[in-house]
Amino acid sequence: LQQLLRFGILGSGSWATALAKLLTDNGHTINWWIRNGDTIQTIQKRRHNPHYLSATYFNVALLHMHTSIVDVITKSDVLLVCIPSAYLQPALFELPNDIFQNKKVISAIKGILPNAKHQLLNEFLEEFFHVPLTNYFTVMGPCHAEEIAAEKLSYLTFSGEDTDMAATLAAYFKSECLNTVVNHDIWGTQYAAVLKNIYALGAGIAHGLEYGDNFLSVYIANATYEMVSFLRRVMIYKQSPDTDKITYASSVYLGDLLVTCYSLFSRNRTLGNMIGKGYSVKVAQLEMNMVAEGYPASKGIHHINKEINSSLPIVTTIYQILWEGLPAAEGFKKIEEVLK
Amino acid sequence: LQQLLRFGILGSGSWATALAKLLTDNGHTINWWIRNGDTIQTIQKRRHNPHYLSATYFNVALLHMHTSIVDVITKSDVLLVCIPSAYLQPALFELPNDIFQNKKVISAIKGILPNAKHQLLNEFLEEFFHVPLTNYFTVMGPCHAEEIAAEKLSYLTFSGEDTDMAATLAAYFKSECLNTVVNHDIWGTQYAAVLKNIYALGAGIAHGLEYGDNFLSVYIANATYEMVSFLRRVMIYKQSPDTDKITYASSVYLGDLLVTCYSLFSRNRTLGNMIGKGYSVKVAQLEMNMVAEGYPASKGIHHINKEINSSLPIVTTIYQILWEGLPAAEGFKKIEEVLK
Repeated sequence: LQQLLRFGILGSGSWATALAKLLTDNGHTINWWIRNGDTIQTIQKRRHNPHYLSATYFNVALLHMHTSIVDVITKSDVLLVCIPSAYLQPALFELPNDIFQNKKVISAIKGILPNAKHQLLNEFLEEFFHVPLTNYFTVMGPCHAEEIAAEKLSYLTFSGEDTDMAATLAAYFKSECLNTVVNHDIWGTQYAAVLKNIYALGAGIAHGLEYGDNFLSVYIANATYEMVSFLRRVMIYKQSPDTDKITYASSVYLGDLLVTCYSLFSRNRTLGNMIGKGYSVKVAQLEMNMVAEGYPASKGIHHINKEINSSLPIVTTIYQILWEGLPAAEGFKKIEEVLK
Repeated sequence: LQQLLRFGILGSGSWATALAKLLTDNGHTINWWIRNGDTIQTIQKRRHNPHYLSATYFNVALLHMHTSIVDVITKSDVLLVCIPSAYLQPALFELPNDIFQNKKVISAIKGILPNAKHQLLNEFLEEFFHVPLTNYFTVMGPCHAEEIAAEKLSYLTFSGEDTDMAATLAAYFKSECLNTVVNHDIWGTQYAAVLKNIYALGAGIAHGLEYGDNFLSVYIANATYEMVSFLRRVMIYKQSPDTDKITYASSVYLGDLLVTCYSLFSRNRTLGNMIGKGYSVKVAQLEMNMVAEGYPASKGIHHINKEINSSLPIVTTIYQILWEGLPAAEGFKKIEEVLK
């Protein structure tokens, strides 16, 4: 069975490129949806993606690249979704609603969809494409794509209600440079990936406000507490069987939070730093000219939490700084009070 | 009552100097044991400690400095112990065994005493000076002394069986630049402070072996799990009433682990880095010419754990690298296998 699964990758950013490297390094053929025909031609000719991880060279005999997303989905058994959450709905909306029938989907998306329901990908796919949860998986964890490219040992966690299948999927990726972990918790892993971006944005604000390393460590320790409390409540809300069985001090939860908060180069941290230094949110975003996922995520979680109803003093304050004009310094004075 | 407590500081390293600054900035007079008379004269004349945090200037009218430890203990109600654990027993051994009678002791020591029993300070003081646990307190938390000197907001945790008194003591230190937390868990806070140095030494080894940021975050997340498991078992072993009531995702546990593991300048990390790069433990130590507390701590915890009996794959491997000649690269191959 294992050798028969045909993988399709949707998206061609740095994370898609890193996952394509992992699969092809293991000798697996992949179908790859790349919207831009010129990029496909360059990869064919030059053996690398000119826009992302350009030092990563592919065995192009293993790449079947298409500008048609329908072709890639139709020809694949497993779809690895690596499209930034902001662009996902436009990419999928016009597809026939049975196109994912009998397909497995692995989400590599670390965000909430920007729709009125603030959906995770599985909720969106279930509503519009009838993808059952049993066919849905996530691949998450602390992975700077640059370190995958540099073949530094990393850990990815494959989650799914069907843990046997999650293990089977993981085996396609595992290598000398990549260890894989299997878990059951698709809700917690996805929300953890959303939350960490908000906390990293806050770490950037703290840095911009000239708090030091002592404070940062206290902030992150308390963010960990807040995140775990939220994830526990989500589990209860979703009636997950995993409630209280999860080891949150592991790579996909705490590890990912740490690598994101401590990374000096993340977009979230950079945006936060500018806001801490006194730029308005709008000017900081224009200046950066790219998307920092913590920004929409703070709004999404703020709304979702109206149902989950967890105590989120840090996220709420960051939301108020980003969306309601609370001055950053004032917001962090409030955060100072709740840390312990 | 609060205004009447007379504080004495034992030790004159960077942490002692930072704590002296906190107390005197709040207007409190202190007795200060400084072994070296020349240092006392310089502080009197130049208003700063020439050896540590030399940019910190004191109101010398508040400093009563003595080369005699007996004078300082006798004249004080509360003794703040800031002597590195390796030098503590020689400093105290010849004192009369009733000298701490009716005194409160606050330990700022982040280590195990290098004696056959691998004692924490409270165990040593109880055995040799009959200091009851009710008179014993700890001050711990993620505090680079340099950031205290620079007046960056930091958080210190005061722990004691007598939490009312811990709160009273904490109030002497609290300021605009220092928030204080009170907790009950003197065992866990002390062992956490010991363990973090071992994990930071390991983080240094990993860095020396050229693991990247993805791996480091996974390593620290799993170290957190291992530390919390150990602390939980200690609580049961000591029959502490705090079992299961502790928030480990807070400054004194996780926060201190983070600031120590991520600090590029810590002695533990520097020693680890040299060992990871291939220096022998002995050469690395000679080269550094100072004490990295994680080195003796790994031996201490290794022995203590014969009674506590917690699963410590990371600490055990670091112990084997440091004390039993296990090659660092081989040790980390073993650690890779247990991370998740």
